Amino acid sequence: MFLRTAYCLLFTHGSLREGGGKITSESQRRLSFIPGFHAVRETLLKTPENLCEIWVGVSRKGPRAEEIAGLGAEKGVPVQFKDLREIEAVAPGAAHQGFVAFAETFSYTDLEDLIEKSRQAPGGALLIVADHITDEGNLGALIRTAAFFGVHGLILPKDRSARITGKLLKRTSGAYASLPVAQVVNLGRTLDLLTEKGFWIIGAAGEAEESIFHFDWDRDVVLGLGSESKGLSHSVRDRCHALVKIPGSGQVESLNLSVAGGVILSEILRQRGTKGGRE
Amino acid sequence: MFLRTAYCLLFTHGSLREGGGKITSESQRRLSFIPGFHAVRETLLKTPENLCEIWVGVSRKGPRAEEIAGLGAEKGVPVQFKDLREIEAVAPGAAHQGFVAFAETFSYTDLEDLIEKSRQAPGGALLIVADHITDEGNLGALIRTAAFFGVHGLILPKDRSARITGKLLKRTSGAYASLPVAQVVNLGRTLDLLTEKGFWIIGAAGEAEESIFHFDWDRDVVLGLGSESKGLSHSVRDRCHALVKIPGSGQVESLNLSVAGGVILSEILRQRGTKGGRE
Repeated sequence: MFLRTAYCLLFTHGSLREGGGKITSESQRRLSFIPGFHAVRETLLKTPENLCEIWVGVSRKGPRAEEIAGLGAEKGVPVQFKDLREIEAVAPGAAHQGFVAFAETFSYTDLEDLIEKSRQAPGGALLIVADHITDEGNLGALIRTAAFFGVHGLILPKDRSARITGKLLKRTSGAYASLPVAQVVNLGRTLDLLTEKGFWIIGAAGEAEESIFHFDWDRDVVLGLGSESKGLSHSVRDRCHALVKIPGSGQVESLNLSVAGGVILSEILRQRGTKGGRE
Repeated sequence: MFLRTAYCLLFTHGSLREGGGKITSESQRRLSFIPGFHAVRETLLKTPENLCEIWVGVSRKGPRAEEIAGLGAEKGVPVQFKDLREIEAVAPGAAHQGFVAFAETFSYTDLEDLIEKSRQAPGGALLIVADHITDEGNLGALIRTAAFFGVHGLILPKDRSARITGKLLKRTSGAYASLPVAQVVNLGRTLDLLTEKGFWIIGAAGEAEESIFHFDWDRDVVLGLGSESKGLSHSVRDRCHALVKIPGSGQVESLNLSVAGGVILSEILRQRGTKGGRE
């Protein structure tokens, strides 16, 4: 219970870490702190992938501090010895006992906000629906690719999707900070809403007839991308206004998710750029 | 010494394994066998990533067989108990002592063959130089992407490049079988040779002025792709006839290697296809 309460004490922290992605008030990456020896130890044992750093009071050196330092080394989480005043400054009033862990959490964007902002973008809205992508590496690579091409937002289902962890954010090489992400309970209903708002739902499917080069991308688009193994889910496929394919040599059936995403996004920007003079 | 000799007993085996990529006489994946308890044990300890299966004679059950079975489980290599006659059949005359390991090796294509075949392809030759890509996952993903788009061959330097191991081949999802790969000692001299033969050496570089959409790809092309961290090496960059970039939003600096490769290859095929009616 204490651990859960501690996780709720979210704050945005601008100066703690120099390495990795920038942590600013505009970033979607946030740091929460977990105070107390047992809470730190438990988190190290159960979900070390979300931890970015641990602080231990210098005056607390002893078997407990050694255990935390050992676990940190084993799980790849840096442990720093700090003056107790520094710990008190980041966790004021918390029963930290000289132990604080910093965890990364991700701040999702509200779906309505994401839609509205995308429609204000010049050259047409461009959103991606990541249709039940359960592989963390693939989702991280897709986020990086989408951010490179300036996609206005990514929509993820709450269930049967990889979670956005600190480890996944690292895989995006910092690119996540440029891409708003919304999490929705029901992908089908979300696509119905987007259709009502005038978006075209376009799904990528290897068996489609229409080439990405022939499709006219000059409209508000939601691009649906499914997992390599399962493709688009029924609830997404049934709502697509068109399915498109990437022409290849025919010798190899499928592309990696982020490669397929990159190829389609590049073509969308090429078509829009030719009209808008972006190239 | 015995191990090294055993590795030389290369044979192509068409029926051993059903799973994974097809193993045919045209495939570039080959199986070598390593006979004998000590040789099998040593390979399991030192280079298990190349092993695809181990056979142990049923009549050899005992501490040695248990050790191999335990090591196999630990390193993720399947161990099967077989009749000694089956082992004798795949390793006739070898001092196998009832223990045989199967290792995957990769068969490279001769550079001259690769060049000649690429020039016979309709629509212009298309080769890739993977400029010192040391990350196995990135090289595997690039091979898969290149095979999807029907690239005629990949050229790798012998030094400072990821090796093509069984693990890497698995990452290509079987696509490697469609892509001839040549390994060269000196990339610079290889590019000089290709230039003499009329190829255009085109390097991908984020800081280039020319867009991949403006470049005319209707010629014999060698596409140079460098690692994400270091970009093109001097010896490749200095030999490029042009450098091209992928237009993005400008918010995120770089793309993953295989994504960048996929985007450029797709544009090359789009331009060539428009002329050749491929779309």
